[in-house]
Amino acid sequence: MNEFKIIKKYLSPLAKNADGAFALTDDAAILKTPKNYEAVITKDAIVAGVHFVGDELAEKIAQKLLRVNLSDLAAMGATPHSYFLALMLPKTTSENWIKSFAKGLADVQKEFGITLMGGDTTSSPTLAFSVTAIGLIKSGKALKRNGAKIGDDIFVSGTIGDSALGLHAVKNKIKNTYLINRYLIPEPRIKLGQELHEIASSCMDISDGLIQDLSHITSASGVGAVVNWQDIPLSQAAQKLLPSIKNKYQIIAAGGDDYELIFTANPKFYAKSQKISEKLSLPITKIGKITSGAQVLLLDNGVETTLSSKGYTHFG
Amino acid sequence: MNEFKIIKKYLSPLAKNADGAFALTDDAAILKTPKNYEAVITKDAIVAGVHFVGDELAEKIAQKLLRVNLSDLAAMGATPHSYFLALMLPKTTSENWIKSFAKGLADVQKEFGITLMGGDTTSSPTLAFSVTAIGLIKSGKALKRNGAKIGDDIFVSGTIGDSALGLHAVKNKIKNTYLINRYLIPEPRIKLGQELHEIASSCMDISDGLIQDLSHITSASGVGAVVNWQDIPLSQAAQKLLPSIKNKYQIIAAGGDDYELIFTANPKFYAKSQKISEKLSLPITKIGKITSGAQVLLLDNGVETTLSSKGYTHFG
Repeated sequence: MNEFKIIKKYLSPLAKNADGAFALTDDAAILKTPKNYEAVITKDAIVAGVHFVGDELAEKIAQKLLRVNLSDLAAMGATPHSYFLALMLPKTTSENWIKSFAKGLADVQKEFGITLMGGDTTSSPTLAFSVTAIGLIKSGKALKRNGAKIGDDIFVSGTIGDSALGLHAVKNKIKNTYLINRYLIPEPRIKLGQELHEIASSCMDISDGLIQDLSHITSASGVGAVVNWQDIPLSQAAQKLLPSIKNKYQIIAAGGDDYELIFTANPKFYAKSQKISEKLSLPITKIGKITSGAQVLLLDNGVETTLSSKGYTHFG
Repeated sequence: MNEFKIIKKYLSPLAKNADGAFALTDDAAILKTPKNYEAVITKDAIVAGVHFVGDELAEKIAQKLLRVNLSDLAAMGATPHSYFLALMLPKTTSENWIKSFAKGLADVQKEFGITLMGGDTTSSPTLAFSVTAIGLIKSGKALKRNGAKIGDDIFVSGTIGDSALGLHAVKNKIKNTYLINRYLIPEPRIKLGQELHEIASSCMDISDGLIQDLSHITSASGVGAVVNWQDIPLSQAAQKLLPSIKNKYQIIAAGGDDYELIFTANPKFYAKSQKISEKLSLPITKIGKITSGAQVLLLDNGVETTLSSKGYTHFG
């Protein structure tokens, strides 16, 4: 199949409800932003051997690809609208692989009410993808990283470290469906993001590791932070596996791929945070405090811990 | 250098004038579309060994990367606004390479008045990039592919085939600065696109080959086309090199990478097309006619020619 057949058979159907996508037959797509709204745009690249092992089911790769981008929209408090997709495929890619990949995209589209708007399909020595996801938000309401204030509480959604433990399970052939699914199928916290604009002073999603991502918030806000190890919410599966892990701080607090939201809020909003938690049936846990200074500390019963790295970096 | 240092040192400066880019420190960027305007969005991926040889100067690669995306905006008649960049870099990439690449981006930014808005920097076994370029256009004014009518004239801008001959020159170590530069540094026909909304019934940019791209217009419009070989505008350099080329039809009419605009217009607009040509000091040449049927024919003195392929495809 050449790229035109791939586009016509598998990608155009994903754009059929998209106003402005012209069934993927044009050079570009048109995005109309409703009055009083702004577009929120995020772009990620994921590469075989770097972001995923490479032999996962195509359907799961597609799911993760879109979900990690939707997580960035969640972190801004936006409502997902559409996406553009660059497919870089080895020439050996089978039609079945493409079919399964398109099925994964379709499932996420349905779940989050988004459509494909355009992109590019090209051959490549390495299997890789880039997604540009577009969300809409009322003008001026986007959550940002730079508003954390000294004395704010630090919250995270859901449980932390599952995905890193899931990857550990995959690599070490440990059977644990819950953790492996948390690694393969992240849950973008769209609804939570939409609720947070009333209370959060800063927000982002945890993709590279709790402590590293928190330090992006603190450095953008010109503050420091203290996180209490005992307060980091762990799933039952994580609690069970953790005693067998060598460096528990590292895998939980720097493991990455959580795609939970981390946000800061004035302590007066604590009750409100728990109401949102109840409404969404999603744990929202206070894990620490914004401080003066520039350091981000992880304390275990008050004792400073050491991480060999604060999170994932691609180079060096 | 890890990706955070790359972003801070080389990419953030490219976003410093971008409202809504937050100096690349946030999860996503905010795009505000002015009243009565729409956003035009295009996304391309380019991969070492597929779209470029790989050992070109980083600065040239950056130039081409942005220019081909701007060419898609030109094809819609849009005014370039900004772009998102996914950088997939081998771990061996040197800081000098990144510095030179950023210089190439900066030069294009300056020339076209665009800014970097966001993206992703990741390691990868294969050097690859994806750009999402954003333009603005008055609501409803975008040029599309699907409006060609039987009897319309077919026009191209500039000269055709230079880039394919330039690649041929690179591969065969033929010295020809003009043709090689046409291959390395395409010229997005932004100003032309902006003029065409008054006269063009359809428009696109020629990236995969004249005949193949024209057949995208004809199939989107439900028409056929005839192109006259003698009318295809060739540069002096192309005319000089052409006698040494085995399949001249193939390299000129299906060679690709021209990044000229091809558009259709009612014959009553012929004089207007030439006025635009004069105003922009850019040849605008009538090369054929839109016909009934579904075929796209290339005639050499009235005799149908055969192309081994109509243009570049990535697979099969």
